[in-house]
Amino acid sequence: MTTHSSDKTVFTRRESEARSYCRSFDTVFTRAVGSELTDADGKTYIDFLAGCSSLNYGHNDPDMKAALIEHISNDGIAMGLDLHTGAKGAFLSAFEDKILAPRDMDHKVMFMGPTGANAVEAAMKLARKVTGRQNIISFTNGFHGVTIGALAATGNSYHRGAAGLTPTGITRLPFDGYMDGIDSADYLAKVLSDASSGVDAPAAIMFETVQGEGGLNAASREWVEKVGRIAREHGALLIIDDIQAGCGRTGSFFSFDGWDVQPDIVTMAKSASGFGLPFAMMLVRPKHDAFGPAEHNGTFRGNTHAFVTARVAIEKFWSDDTFKNEIARKSELLEGKLEELAAMVPGAYLKGRGMMRGVDVGSGELAGAICARAFENGLIVETSGPEDEVVKILAPLTTPDETFVKGLDILLDAARHVTAGNQQIAAE
Amino acid sequence: MTTHSSDKTVFTRRESEARSYCRSFDTVFTRAVGSELTDADGKTYIDFLAGCSSLNYGHNDPDMKAALIEHISNDGIAMGLDLHTGAKGAFLSAFEDKILAPRDMDHKVMFMGPTGANAVEAAMKLARKVTGRQNIISFTNGFHGVTIGALAATGNSYHRGAAGLTPTGITRLPFDGYMDGIDSADYLAKVLSDASSGVDAPAAIMFETVQGEGGLNAASREWVEKVGRIAREHGALLIIDDIQAGCGRTGSFFSFDGWDVQPDIVTMAKSASGFGLPFAMMLVRPKHDAFGPAEHNGTFRGNTHAFVTARVAIEKFWSDDTFKNEIARKSELLEGKLEELAAMVPGAYLKGRGMMRGVDVGSGELAGAICARAFENGLIVETSGPEDEVVKILAPLTTPDETFVKGLDILLDAARHVTAGNQQIAAE
Amino acid sequence: MTTHSSDKTVFTRRESEARSYCRSFDTVFTRAVGSELTDADGKTYIDFLAGCSSLNYGHNDPDMKAALIEHISNDGIAMGLDLHTGAKGAFLSAFEDKILAPRDMDHKVMFMGPTGANAVEAAMKLARKVTGRQNIISFTNGFHGVTIGALAATGNSYHRGAAGLTPTGITRLPFDGYMDGIDSADYLAKVLSDASSGVDAPAAIMFETVQGEGGLNAASREWVEKVGRIAREHGALLIIDDIQAGCGRTGSFFSFDGWDVQPDIVTMAKSASGFGLPFAMMLVRPKHDAFGPAEHNGTFRGNTHAFVTARVAIEKFWSDDTFKNEIARKSELLEGKLEELAAMVPGAYLKGRGMMRGVDVGSGELAGAICARAFENGLIVETSGPEDEVVKILAPLTTPDETFVKGLDILLDAARHVTAGNQQIAAE
Amino acid sequence: MTTHSSDKTVFTRRESEARSYCRSFDTVFTRAVGSELTDADGKTYIDFLAGCSSLNYGHNDPDMKAALIEHISNDGIAMGLDLHTGAKGAFLSAFEDKILAPRDMDHKVMFMGPTGANAVEAAMKLARKVTGRQNIISFTNGFHGVTIGALAATGNSYHRGAAGLTPTGITRLPFDGYMDGIDSADYLAKVLSDASSGVDAPAAIMFETVQGEGGLNAASREWVEKVGRIAREHGALLIIDDIQAGCGRTGSFFSFDGWDVQPDIVTMAKSASGFGLPFAMMLVRPKHDAFGPAEHNGTFRGNTHAFVTARVAIEKFWSDDTFKNEIARKSELLEGKLEELAAMVPGAYLKGRGMMRGVDVGSGELAGAICARAFENGLIVETSGPEDEVVKILAPLTTPDETFVKGLDILLDAARHVTAGNQQIAAE
Repeated sequence: MTTHSSDKTVFTRRESEARSYCRSFDTVFTRAVGSELTDADGKTYIDFLAGCSSLNYGHNDPDMKAALIEHISNDGIAMGLDLHTGAKGAFLSAFEDKILAPRDMDHKVMFMGPTGANAVEAAMKLARKVTGRQNIISFTNGFHGVTIGALAATGNSYHRGAAGLTPTGITRLPFDGYMDGIDSADYLAKVLSDASSGVDAPAAIMFETVQGEGGLNAASREWVEKVGRIAREHGALLIIDDIQAGCGRTGSFFSFDGWDVQPDIVTMAKSASGFGLPFAMMLVRPKHDAFGPAEHNGTFRGNTHAFVTARVAIEKFWSDDTFKNEIARKSELLEGKLEELAAMVPGAYLKGRGMMRGVDVGSGELAGAICARAFENGLIVETSGPEDEVVKILAPLTTPDETFVKGLDILLDAARHVTAGNQQIAAE
Repeated sequence: MTTHSSDKTVFTRRESEARSYCRSFDTVFTRAVGSELTDADGKTYIDFLAGCSSLNYGHNDPDMKAALIEHISNDGIAMGLDLHTGAKGAFLSAFEDKILAPRDMDHKVMFMGPTGANAVEAAMKLARKVTGRQNIISFTNGFHGVTIGALAATGNSYHRGAAGLTPTGITRLPFDGYMDGIDSADYLAKVLSDASSGVDAPAAIMFETVQGEGGLNAASREWVEKVGRIAREHGALLIIDDIQAGCGRTGSFFSFDGWDVQPDIVTMAKSASGFGLPFAMMLVRPKHDAFGPAEHNGTFRGNTHAFVTARVAIEKFWSDDTFKNEIARKSELLEGKLEELAAMVPGAYLKGRGMMRGVDVGSGELAGAICARAFENGLIVETSGPEDEVVKILAPLTTPDETFVKGLDILLDAARHVTAGNQQIAAE
Repeated sequence: MTTHSSDKTVFTRRESEARSYCRSFDTVFTRAVGSELTDADGKTYIDFLAGCSSLNYGHNDPDMKAALIEHISNDGIAMGLDLHTGAKGAFLSAFEDKILAPRDMDHKVMFMGPTGANAVEAAMKLARKVTGRQNIISFTNGFHGVTIGALAATGNSYHRGAAGLTPTGITRLPFDGYMDGIDSADYLAKVLSDASSGVDAPAAIMFETVQGEGGLNAASREWVEKVGRIAREHGALLIIDDIQAGCGRTGSFFSFDGWDVQPDIVTMAKSASGFGLPFAMMLVRPKHDAFGPAEHNGTFRGNTHAFVTARVAIEKFWSDDTFKNEIARKSELLEGKLEELAAMVPGAYLKGRGMMRGVDVGSGELAGAICARAFENGLIVETSGPEDEVVKILAPLTTPDETFVKGLDILLDAARHVTAGNQQIAAE
Repeated sequence: MTTHSSDKTVFTRRESEARSYCRSFDTVFTRAVGSELTDADGKTYIDFLAGCSSLNYGHNDPDMKAALIEHISNDGIAMGLDLHTGAKGAFLSAFEDKILAPRDMDHKVMFMGPTGANAVEAAMKLARKVTGRQNIISFTNGFHGVTIGALAATGNSYHRGAAGLTPTGITRLPFDGYMDGIDSADYLAKVLSDASSGVDAPAAIMFETVQGEGGLNAASREWVEKVGRIAREHGALLIIDDIQAGCGRTGSFFSFDGWDVQPDIVTMAKSASGFGLPFAMMLVRPKHDAFGPAEHNGTFRGNTHAFVTARVAIEKFWSDDTFKNEIARKSELLEGKLEELAAMVPGAYLKGRGMMRGVDVGSGELAGAICARAFENGLIVETSGPEDEVVKILAPLTTPDETFVKGLDILLDAARHVTAGNQQIAAE
């Protein structure tokens, strides 16, 4: 019995053409610790992709790992449907104590199928059920998943085109800063107040505070707060999709911590388990907690292994401000390095917020070349944005400074190499 | 740090009203081995629910458990997006060797977000993309998940009502045996051949061979084969949703093993990981493997921990016919006991196939009373069907005979008790 | 200034390819009286198409013609939006006195854009508004128009394919007699009673009592009455689309006169104006008359010229039973002749009811050849059904016996000629 | 036999609550000539509503009237389905000679059910069929009809709310001048160029050049031309809905005459028949004339009586520039008078273009009061806009100066009276 195989032929022979990251990072990974991945040949890579922000606390955090092994060793529940389990109770208690209560959030927690898309589907369904309205406002460049309900809200045409039909129930409006001259919150307010705008009264207004897949477009605090007020005025639920931007990625647990906004629903997934395990949840204010028992159901709602690690993550990182301060410090380091990168490419500029940052280098071709070069030199980093024109850094928030700097320097070298090559081509 | 809590107040205080099974089985579970669950008070229950067929091999199978602990201990990958990993390669190799190749199935395997609903969404999208058609035929009493795309195909009005909008893209036809007098395959053939039937040319015809949530309605081999031929004649893909009926539940790995039907797509989830971990996949014939890279994407596509246990499950249980024969033997035992149960209730009759069986006792009230009484006596078992009128047995396929008989006797006692009570009430 | 042109080049040069009947009956018509049309060359044709049943009282009925000329000469209103006009008041009074009151129908009359499709759209919208439900049950081979709302209910794939999207909001069920073995009313009752049938609670059940375009499928009285009861039991509105079958076509003013069924909504168009002028209306019971002012609006709602002729039609033909008896007599004559026709073609059989009859000759090719031959000999008659396999007779109900027999004999000759040719070909 | 009735009880007793204009103008009209309506009591009203622009040439134009009477007297065709008729040929010839050829328009003419909504439905379906795309861009405050396909494109929430479901297939964008700061053509270009804007590649971009129901918002020539270029660049058809703004209403036959824009499709209705008869058509460039025979069908496609009057209208009014110059002159007169009106109301301002003008008086209440007062004094005039805040003048273009001035003076007096009353109330 072989537990690990470095034979890649089985992937091309038997895995669907839908596979993707493995094409850019074409090796067989076998181990991972902290911010580093190791492949079958023993080569180590710094990981600035971090499971698309699912590994904010790095790979195989020792405390979560120990707790999970202990749980399994003791024949702890692996699959518990939505039964009460000790692991779930302990997670809920920790989440209440460390996250909800300190923020005066009275939200209840709903566990659904462990994907972000499922959290979004549940949120959209619930908003429609609660309000009796069908329309949901979503925004240019938003990404909320690719199952049909969520896909309606997702902007990306490649993903939309795969549906084979046009998903319904969405009105698309311009996101904050989408185009010069448009005050998109004012536009939102106007269409909702105008009885013949053609924008039906919405069940919800839904957005990411930083659009992860859409190109690291960060909404301003003012915009988020204003949209929150508009939602309330028009009887729409405010849904903040914090799947990618939450769990510390932008500097605090929620991406909107400290802002004057109280979302009716928050969707979470990715780093919510702490360990990269499949896990999703929806936070919903009690007054809107209107699903009946199992009305939105699914087999894997509440991944018990994930409850174990998620509890450790909450207790370890969010019991005080240490981690938050650490992220803030590291964000500055990141910002400085990315400014260096931006300076290499005419017209390039920084995007994003906190540890969810990148550089728009103006073309997907260039961004792709930089990432490819970086991979050759031992760094995993990907692009984002409508044309993949943004080099996007999603390093584990726990990355040690030395590794972080090393990774960023690989990126800078790659950018230097690629842009030098371009200039050489231009000069010839 | 408390890892387990038996305090149930946090559930009512902080878990959404959507929670469900915990209402019927209202205790806090902490450990599970094989076919038994133990709660925080140390009470042990026989589990005939088995994670809704997600635990066909029982809880915490020792070989899977060992492999998983080893994987974690060695810092194996937990979250790998859709990168190549050793664990994935080993699973694919085992799945090819033990499952696909012996059946001459050339299917490729697509991993998506680890829920059955996501597998169904991907299958429906792919069928539409491949054919350029929108309509998908699904059947009365079918259940395929509750995200909007899949929900269109799901028959249950309680779940459909939660959408807040009417999902699109489905034509509903009567399932095999739905109503006396209707030959539903002939009806299907007729509407597809009739240019003004109003049933648009379908992208796919999708069904479960045994409708798990719909009341254990088992399609006949003849019907399945005929519908397969009709699909081929009309250029529609045949999608068999084997999420609940697959992985040995009906007696063989696929529910259609040995039948003269070759589905274009098979959806799998539930017991696919072997260990109850979130995991889903779609098997698709190479000629239809038409998604581009990441066209249907998701963060948790391919749960690496699940690859580890799934490989063990395949190698341990499906390397030869031992397990299959064991299931066949146990099915007979089950059938005998359920006939006893049916004999207690006038008009009751057996439904289902293999180890996916139940008894229609004529009313949801009666079925619910039987299950409630069984729970008091240490058995977890649930109902199914449009009115919850079917007592449904989904015992782990690995349940030792002694435990199996013990569980079934608790069920029979419960039925005896409840029906005696009813007769007493009637007599008074 | 030329008022009539026999130059056909302008049609091919400037009229859209969507033109249709003019391809089968390729001449330029200039005059029409009673049951006969005359072309620019002075050739006269017997008209068994009758504007697809829009000319039940024949062309240019002298009394309607006189009233209309008088109205125009006196500068009567031509376009009145939905203002009160004398002409509308007079029509409503006549319709109340001669049609509604004698049948104890308390229905109110709504005028919309003057097309049958618009009446259907209004009916479907109203049923949804009244019930708060979206689903509407329609039937195989039904035809209700081609605007998107109505097209959802229309079965014909050629028309459905022209939409460029899949219209929503319909469940399709088998019509009465659609397939041996299926009791379609029982099937309807079952899916509505089954909580997981996947057929959502309907806003309305809508059908034609005789499917004009779908092949002259006539529902039985028993089926119509049963479906009416099922609709009531399930809180659905009963919509009878009497656009083609109404106004005497099946023998009485409404196609359901004398049956134990009270439709909540009746849609009317085609012969409603009496003179072939664009005109449509919806009859709706007061308790469901729930549109607000202009909530379903349109410029031409209520064609004032049509009010004038429609009033004359009602008063002239429906003040007593004379016309009804005349239709009954003529229907028998028709039936006899069509039996002769059916006898010429092996397997052919009669379809339809009253003066809405035809013969299914088994193939569209044969039916088309018969109609083409008939046209050569001075008869205008068309086909119907999914494959155009039904020769369909829609003669004006006022056709004099001599003309009627003459037309039918042309048809029989054509059938004889074509089938003889076929036999000759077969014999060679 | 009573041909005219002034008894209004039949309307409340038997006409649907959907009736509307008759509520504001509550009398029974019996005759109409030119720009004046007469009621059953002999009272005469100046008509500045003109059948919502369906009577651009006034009521009962003597030449059209004579031609129509002659046609009917001679037993001309009343109902011709889409057969060739002399009347249709003569209309097409006149339309080609006087309208299409002089403008170098190669468009073909499609006749459909005689309502504007039907023309819009056909246009939307055709654009989808031709491009294989589903999405159609429509604009804030647009009005295109209330059948489900067209309603998707209509902005008005009152009408949208009557559907009982959410119509699909539309993306709503801001119209020209909708909000300060938004260059809506640039925004359109951006979302179509942005691969993750969430606005799917459109089949068509559709708008009115002056939004009749939406409040007389007039698009600038620059915007229309720019949007035309954007449509072409993105492979979308340009549909100009000229139903209300066409036929001379804005000063020329088409509302875009002389502009550098060539719409792929033009929808026409309202005044197209010249006489107020139900009539609609779609002009489509030959390369997009892709419907098959009867693929978009309907009984009343091509109203033969309307062909007769429409031909006269074309020949009489559009053979040279006389009428166009007359409209221009009258528009100036109108503009002057409306400036007087606007001066009476603080903040009021003129809207619209040509003879399609009005004054935004800031509130629906005020606008309604002015119109009500005007009606008392013998003028029929209505409001428009999202809140009915625009007093909208749609006088027949043929209105004699004396009558026109008289009507406008009634309107000014009404405004003076109402605003004086308001000031008095404010002063008290």
